[in-house]
Amino acid sequence: MEHLSVKHAQECILEAIGRLDVETVRLEQALGRVLAEEVRANRDQPPYDVSAMDGYALRGADLAVIPATLALIGDIQAGDMPSLTVQTGQCARIMTGAPLPQGADAVIRVEDTQSAGEGGVQINRAVPAGNDIRRLGENMRNGEVVLNAGTEITPGVIGILATVKCAQLQVTRRPRVAILSTGNELEGMDEPFDPNKIPNSNSYALMAQVQALGIEPVLLGIARDNPAELAEYLQRGLKFDVLLVSGGSSVGVHDYVRPTIEALGVRMLFWRVAIKPGHPLAFGTTSKTAVFGLPGNPVSSMVCFEQFVAPALRGMMGHARLYRRTVTARLAHAVKTRPGRTEFIRVMLSGDDAGGYVATSTGTQSSGVSLSMARADGLLVVPATCNGLAAGGSVTVQLLDGTAFQDDVGFRE
Amino acid sequence: MEHLSVKHAQECILEAIGRLDVETVRLEQALGRVLAEEVRANRDQPPYDVSAMDGYALRGADLAVIPATLALIGDIQAGDMPSLTVQTGQCARIMTGAPLPQGADAVIRVEDTQSAGEGGVQINRAVPAGNDIRRLGENMRNGEVVLNAGTEITPGVIGILATVKCAQLQVTRRPRVAILSTGNELEGMDEPFDPNKIPNSNSYALMAQVQALGIEPVLLGIARDNPAELAEYLQRGLKFDVLLVSGGSSVGVHDYVRPTIEALGVRMLFWRVAIKPGHPLAFGTTSKTAVFGLPGNPVSSMVCFEQFVAPALRGMMGHARLYRRTVTARLAHAVKTRPGRTEFIRVMLSGDDAGGYVATSTGTQSSGVSLSMARADGLLVVPATCNGLAAGGSVTVQLLDGTAFQDDVGFRE
Repeated sequence: MEHLSVKHAQECILEAIGRLDVETVRLEQALGRVLAEEVRANRDQPPYDVSAMDGYALRGADLAVIPATLALIGDIQAGDMPSLTVQTGQCARIMTGAPLPQGADAVIRVEDTQSAGEGGVQINRAVPAGNDIRRLGENMRNGEVVLNAGTEITPGVIGILATVKCAQLQVTRRPRVAILSTGNELEGMDEPFDPNKIPNSNSYALMAQVQALGIEPVLLGIARDNPAELAEYLQRGLKFDVLLVSGGSSVGVHDYVRPTIEALGVRMLFWRVAIKPGHPLAFGTTSKTAVFGLPGNPVSSMVCFEQFVAPALRGMMGHARLYRRTVTARLAHAVKTRPGRTEFIRVMLSGDDAGGYVATSTGTQSSGVSLSMARADGLLVVPATCNGLAAGGSVTVQLLDGTAFQDDVGFRE
Repeated sequence: MEHLSVKHAQECILEAIGRLDVETVRLEQALGRVLAEEVRANRDQPPYDVSAMDGYALRGADLAVIPATLALIGDIQAGDMPSLTVQTGQCARIMTGAPLPQGADAVIRVEDTQSAGEGGVQINRAVPAGNDIRRLGENMRNGEVVLNAGTEITPGVIGILATVKCAQLQVTRRPRVAILSTGNELEGMDEPFDPNKIPNSNSYALMAQVQALGIEPVLLGIARDNPAELAEYLQRGLKFDVLLVSGGSSVGVHDYVRPTIEALGVRMLFWRVAIKPGHPLAFGTTSKTAVFGLPGNPVSSMVCFEQFVAPALRGMMGHARLYRRTVTARLAHAVKTRPGRTEFIRVMLSGDDAGGYVATSTGTQSSGVSLSMARADGLLVVPATCNGLAAGGSVTVQLLDGTAFQDDVGFRE
């Protein structure tokens, strides 16, 4: 069977999966979810013209000659509904967010004024009508659609939902995800230490990759290398929306993994992708479950998760943004690769003086060195056509978890 | 009082706060936390020389003439401890991760071989000694420090912790955060609709910003504009590690907010920062609580949270990376600004053909337009010395939540 390109494999997966159904969550639980309904404003916001500053409400025409001294006729707090009217030669003290009183057409901030004795205020700067006023409905108009279905719920969106008093909302459900490791060589977390075994790290790294997408997966444990035990574990996994099988899909174990998995009704769509590290990578579906066969090697498993599983899980949750963010970086040193497969090189990112990024390999790219994944900020993508990369070249780096923040502020004031 | 620069305010805050104490968490709960202990390998990993491929273990010297036919003497699965010895002219079938048998010094992958009838394998490519073998201890050596204290726990780090079977670990505690809104004009989420009031969106936007850092805050509600009620609410807030007070710290309300807060033993370190949108922004401390006075305006509140509160909360949790990640982008259009304050312009990011970013304003930058924050991918940073920015210029954009993923894959294969 031919090796699929990364892109074709991604397309095949995304065609096979669909957006999940809808559930209702409280606003407090909505962060990171995707809105499954349209949301409209339930009032004009602000509900009246308000002051944008702490200062004085006045008539712009009174400031033809500066400084001007105006008579202070009152004090308007946010939340007040003022009954006073500002006449020519008058002003009213006003707080940020407080309603503009009748008669006033501008606000001047307190910093541009000074006291002028008993009941008077000296205005030191002329301002036009409309100055520092937020107009009725400037933020949103009653009945207007303020958020579309499909919007990812960020903190800014939470602010809008609270503004329209949306205490509960419809979002796309999260997939239920099961993780199964396979292999006689694996030692479970709670099993006694055996110097000849290999700790089951993949289940936990995959768990964390799933958690990083906002999903709490279920660990099914380790299925040993025999068809009956594997079938039993796989059946449990096929009750979930997504089943991740770690290991067990390479050439040699096809003998029983592939027949076992197909006998359970999984239609396998592909077994091979032209990716390094990574192949073998398998994908299949039943009517309700998407099944990923991930490589047993820890680095390969994590890299394949990011390229294939994360976009699928994001798509099921209704996200429009499925792929890890990429940045352009300058390569600190030459990288040897061979053409044929798209390669993902673990790199650390640092900044250069011009505000750009420099990518440096985490060291040996042996896929057995899982520490290289722990140290990586990103994955440098080497196209399958490349015959190595030169030092100083411009490269594309996919950002991994842990890169939302950086060491220094990154801008000049 | 003079306006502090953003940088000086950040430094003042970071000097005043400290790393919190340590707690023990299970591996399943450790993602995103910061390791508070050094972690060492508890075995050599791999524990023996293992095959990096599914293929055949053999002696490289037997491949002087290609193709070579070798006698197949056995089959080694991962998890087996082989007792056989590969002699000259022999090979053993071997699975990825399985121990190399005695006598063999190389592995050839199955794709470079074919069956040669009963008990024989034809090898079609010469490989040197050491080929496709992962050496004992290649990933980690028993006793070696594999993770330092201060490491942020990403999925890759979870994989390492599982490899050394660290089911429980010491991490820096998360701060307990309380959020208090102030103002007579505010309408609580559960209060009846009043067309003259303004919904309390800030508490929820701040809640989500805190949640995005992995912390579940407590909402204290709304304190009305009177000193006694404010004092009561502030006292509740001062039982937490961090108290965020939304609104109430602008010029006009200093009259009672500042004395009230200082009467409760809070030492105020600053009240003014040269930031737009944003000022007034206040910061103070007691012996146990860091108190932030955030602007009442929703956009200003969120922008100030990202610049001042997020780094503080990250620092308390032990992170080395305190500041939002920045990228360089090309500005799609001119931006008018006035010198004097560091400005943060809400922008959307898109990609250009060369793999770079283009920043486009979300529209009106009135700080009353909270929808602009909901639509933003990032904050374009305009230095305080700038007198506007020209179209096409290179600018720095701070990435906001919701940008870890993007619409398209972003690389060529």
